Amino acid sequence: MARIVMKFGGTSVAGTERIRRVANIVRAQAAGGNQVAVVVSAMAGETDRLVNFCREANPLFDPAEYDVVVSSGEQVTAGLLALTLQSMGCRARSWLGWQVPVKTFANHANARVGDIEAAEMIAAMEGGQIAIIPGFQGVSDDGRITTMGRGGSDTSAVAVAAAVEADRCDIYTDVDGVYTTDPRIVARARKIKHIAFEEMLELASVGAKVLQTRSVSMAMKYNVRLQVLSSFVDESSPSADTLPGTMIVSEEEMGKLLEDGQVERQVVTGIAHDKNEARVVLTRVPDKPGAVAEIFGPLGDAGINVDMIIQNVGRDKGETDVTFTVPLSDLARTQAMLEDRKEKLGFNRVITDSKVAKISVVGMGMKSHAGVAATMFQALADRGINVQAISTSEIKVSVLIDEDETELAVRVLHTAYGLDAPDEAA
Amino acid sequence: MARIVMKFGGTSVAGTERIRRVANIVRAQAAGGNQVAVVVSAMAGETDRLVNFCREANPLFDPAEYDVVVSSGEQVTAGLLALTLQSMGCRARSWLGWQVPVKTFANHANARVGDIEAAEMIAAMEGGQIAIIPGFQGVSDDGRITTMGRGGSDTSAVAVAAAVEADRCDIYTDVDGVYTTDPRIVARARKIKHIAFEEMLELASVGAKVLQTRSVSMAMKYNVRLQVLSSFVDESSPSADTLPGTMIVSEEEMGKLLEDGQVERQVVTGIAHDKNEARVVLTRVPDKPGAVAEIFGPLGDAGINVDMIIQNVGRDKGETDVTFTVPLSDLARTQAMLEDRKEKLGFNRVITDSKVAKISVVGMGMKSHAGVAATMFQALADRGINVQAISTSEIKVSVLIDEDETELAVRVLHTAYGLDAPDEAA
Repeated sequence: MARIVMKFGGTSVAGTERIRRVANIVRAQAAGGNQVAVVVSAMAGETDRLVNFCREANPLFDPAEYDVVVSSGEQVTAGLLALTLQSMGCRARSWLGWQVPVKTFANHANARVGDIEAAEMIAAMEGGQIAIIPGFQGVSDDGRITTMGRGGSDTSAVAVAAAVEADRCDIYTDVDGVYTTDPRIVARARKIKHIAFEEMLELASVGAKVLQTRSVSMAMKYNVRLQVLSSFVDESSPSADTLPGTMIVSEEEMGKLLEDGQVERQVVTGIAHDKNEARVVLTRVPDKPGAVAEIFGPLGDAGINVDMIIQNVGRDKGETDVTFTVPLSDLARTQAMLEDRKEKLGFNRVITDSKVAKISVVGMGMKSHAGVAATMFQALADRGINVQAISTSEIKVSVLIDEDETELAVRVLHTAYGLDAPDEAA
Repeated sequence: MARIVMKFGGTSVAGTERIRRVANIVRAQAAGGNQVAVVVSAMAGETDRLVNFCREANPLFDPAEYDVVVSSGEQVTAGLLALTLQSMGCRARSWLGWQVPVKTFANHANARVGDIEAAEMIAAMEGGQIAIIPGFQGVSDDGRITTMGRGGSDTSAVAVAAAVEADRCDIYTDVDGVYTTDPRIVARARKIKHIAFEEMLELASVGAKVLQTRSVSMAMKYNVRLQVLSSFVDESSPSADTLPGTMIVSEEEMGKLLEDGQVERQVVTGIAHDKNEARVVLTRVPDKPGAVAEIFGPLGDAGINVDMIIQNVGRDKGETDVTFTVPLSDLARTQAMLEDRKEKLGFNRVITDSKVAKISVVGMGMKSHAGVAATMFQALADRGINVQAISTSEIKVSVLIDEDETELAVRVLHTAYGLDAPDEAA
């Protein structure tokens, strides 16, 4: 017997037929004697419909009223799932954000989860009732509905799992787990059975879209075991322990699994790519103390997330080229801010390039293995792929390359680190 | 300066364009220096969509979860109207049922309004903020969402008006007032400028569909001045006192208006028709004490609303025919219940007729004028219309006739009581 939080995304609950399929999966978990809470998204397309209404009503919308409108999508799904479970003979009820309550702070439309006082809900779960919680929504200190930003239902699920001290938080989605890389690029990509929070965070932040970064860091903080799995599997089969998803666990648990031989020791766990970055080069920046701070301080203040900073020595003495990347969506704003301050900063030109891609190799194994970066550079050089910038963390090496070479680079690296699945035909 | 509650139905808020029109009407009232609360329905069609989801999820739905799902329609409209008003520079916020709170009791899906503790909302209104309240919804003692049954938004509006001690409750709808009779039948029907609660109640209960009966009786109980008017009038014109709707007021206020000569003294105020009744005849019922109670007791227990009971003396001594009407939707159930108990009741046959119509003339003037019923019977007899049953109250006379003669009877009576508008061509 375990206490489990299950989360289903928008495509899994798009319509009453799919909600019935979800209810079957939930029922199977409850029938196994588990205490179950379910977090649901709005039906696919519904949030877009509601957001459009808000835009039509008021392009500069008040986020508090926006929250009133858009939170209704999850409310509907929660009620319908409770009704469907009841039709199957299960005891179930919905718990809206303000009923649990899921207290939030900070801004409307982008609220952060605070305290979740779930005592009443836990008591109901202990009494055998399935709890259904609309994701994405909470309640502010002054008793108004809040929402957590698009995709916030993953975060809701992890927060609820932490609050009810769940043994596991299962995130059901339209893919069946986390892969060593994008299977659309590498046919031999393998599903990862176990991955550490830190690795998942690095992968999520560089373009593996399976889970929201915020939900993974919250799971790490509260040590919630996360599982990613598909809601489109055969609904008659799932038993708690044989679900064929990806389990995301703490470094400590990962260590135990390695010791027990349940996990194969890998240096690199996964390879991610991200085409949503742009490269900016400032030429002939005066090479004096504080110059770099003067460039990046204002960008940071404007909420622009600068990554991969490199300083090249320039042709002339006392001058340097500064290269960095920013999110593609912030490129125009970045360029305008730099041009405005050109005189003050004293550089010569701004050169930008949006046709770049960031390729990252991620793995806890790097902590104890040298030569991971060298392998990467060699493998890319062997195929003539030029590296424009490099950044590293304890468990990640990222390089910036020409966007056109993205797929080639991912395939080359997937092979170089021994991640390819065995040839089935062999 | 006045405190006004305005209510807009589903067709008035069907889409963001129509909500903008509503916002213009609301703004005009607020700009006149009035304190304004607005009660809104769900967009036309939305509640049906949500009810269908519930039926698909669980044909025998749990009304508590049904309420979670269907209440979302009004929530969306409330948020959108607040956003639209804000886009016009008005201060506005939504107050959901659980936020006001609108406390309710009795059953989910058919809740009754209890206390409305509106102190915080009133303070906001006094501060110049327009309050937007989703109709139809409230909150139960144990903090769950409730709804008041279809069409409950009128009742919400009157309850809110009573709670905030409004000077007036304006019900905006797709017709521009209450008429002396159905204008689709009588081209010369006139809009009634003032009508008493009691008269409106009788008209509403016999088929004039402008207002919910429950909302009128609540307005009478709390002495809330009600006005019915159209939201499809020119939005630039409405000033508080020249709105061309129908005002529904207390008998006392009506008396004053009569004394001041502001209202013309009429014996009959309006004529209603209702085709949703069916006639039932039980032949040769034993004429003994308690026989009638044995017939109607069980029907009442089953929630069947029996109307217009007549006992005819039968052909044989000691026997009688009993005629009565029931709502058409209960006819099959009534017939089955009677056949089941045929032996016990001792009657000979059940004869039913669903092709009947009830025609009612209503007017406070009947209290002081004799001969109203006689005028009715004579006018109908002159045109060869056969009266099958009669029932009367202090301010109403109803007759049951052949359904095919409905329009003829309404026209004849409208003329007979001098209600026809003057001939404009004359």
